[in-house]
Amino acid sequence: MRVLGIDCGTERTGYGVIESDGRRHLIIAAGTIRASAALSMSGRLAGIARGLRDVVAAHAPQAAAVEDVFHAANTKSALKLAHVRGIALLILAEASVPCGEYSALVVKQSVVGSGRAAKEQVQFMVRSLLGNEVPVDEPDACDALAVAICHATRQANLARIGVAS
Amino acid sequence: MRVLGIDCGTERTGYGVIESDGRRHLIIAAGTIRASAALSMSGRLAGIARGLRDVVAAHAPQAAAVEDVFHAANTKSALKLAHVRGIALLILAEASVPCGEYSALVVKQSVVGSGRAAKEQVQFMVRSLLGNEVPVDEPDACDALAVAICHATRQANLARIGVAS
Repeated sequence: MRVLGIDCGTERTGYGVIESDGRRHLIIAAGTIRASAALSMSGRLAGIARGLRDVVAAHAPQAAAVEDVFHAANTKSALKLAHVRGIALLILAEASVPCGEYSALVVKQSVVGSGRAAKEQVQFMVRSLLGNEVPVDEPDACDALAVAICHATRQANLARIGVAS
Repeated sequence: MRVLGIDCGTERTGYGVIESDGRRHLIIAAGTIRASAALSMSGRLAGIARGLRDVVAAHAPQAAAVEDVFHAANTKSALKLAHVRGIALLILAEASVPCGEYSALVVKQSVVGSGRAAKEQVQFMVRSLLGNEVPVDEPDACDALAVAICHATRQANLARIGVAS
């Protein structure tokens, strides 16, 4: 299954595409869509939408996954993030790509084995699972790959025990 | 100037189009885009996007306005609302329609004269300004018309004193 993970952000939106049977994962593409902080929110959203549509068109994912929007830390940031998440969900719906949603805790549990894993531990595991093609200097792309791995693993587990997602 | 006001909501998104010189306002269209609560968030966003694109295509607004997302009341609702607001801003940007953003307080001040006006007073004033074509039983469309009136009035005032918005 080809899975697209998206790590939404108003300035940097990471994406990662993997091919996976739920146990072995192969990296297909990963990168960061940048939106200049000098632009208005509308301008940024238009740029992010263009970038995401290009990724979907180029890699034709069969499934996608995004993180839940966290609202504990900073409400203002969370509200901005929700704007980006809205357009990500829209673009996936318009491309008929079903989209899973996971909390950061579940992504960490799935990739590292502990919901309290540090960001660096997640990135270490993503590299262990996918190899040297994971962009070292693009943490958002790495986070997006983690979300994709989480989704692929969980979907495969559900299929194994005969539960439709 | 033809102005589109949008009142974002995950179940009902109101829209209102007016023609205005900043003093006299004429209603062109108003209505509500409904998204079934039975749909997933993605499904709702796709429906709202379709509806908003149709409105923009049908009425070719020169400007648009939306309310700021409030985050005082209920963070969870505000986060959902921000998803819809994100796609509204995206659709306006993609149609090259510049979009103003106003707090509920500023909209009330502009339409009623008091930032503490009740919802009913806003709706009464919208009807007084635009006449009987304002849909009585569509509060979201009425709120959208209030945002459009606010934007048209303020843009005209800014032009009058020689300030580009």
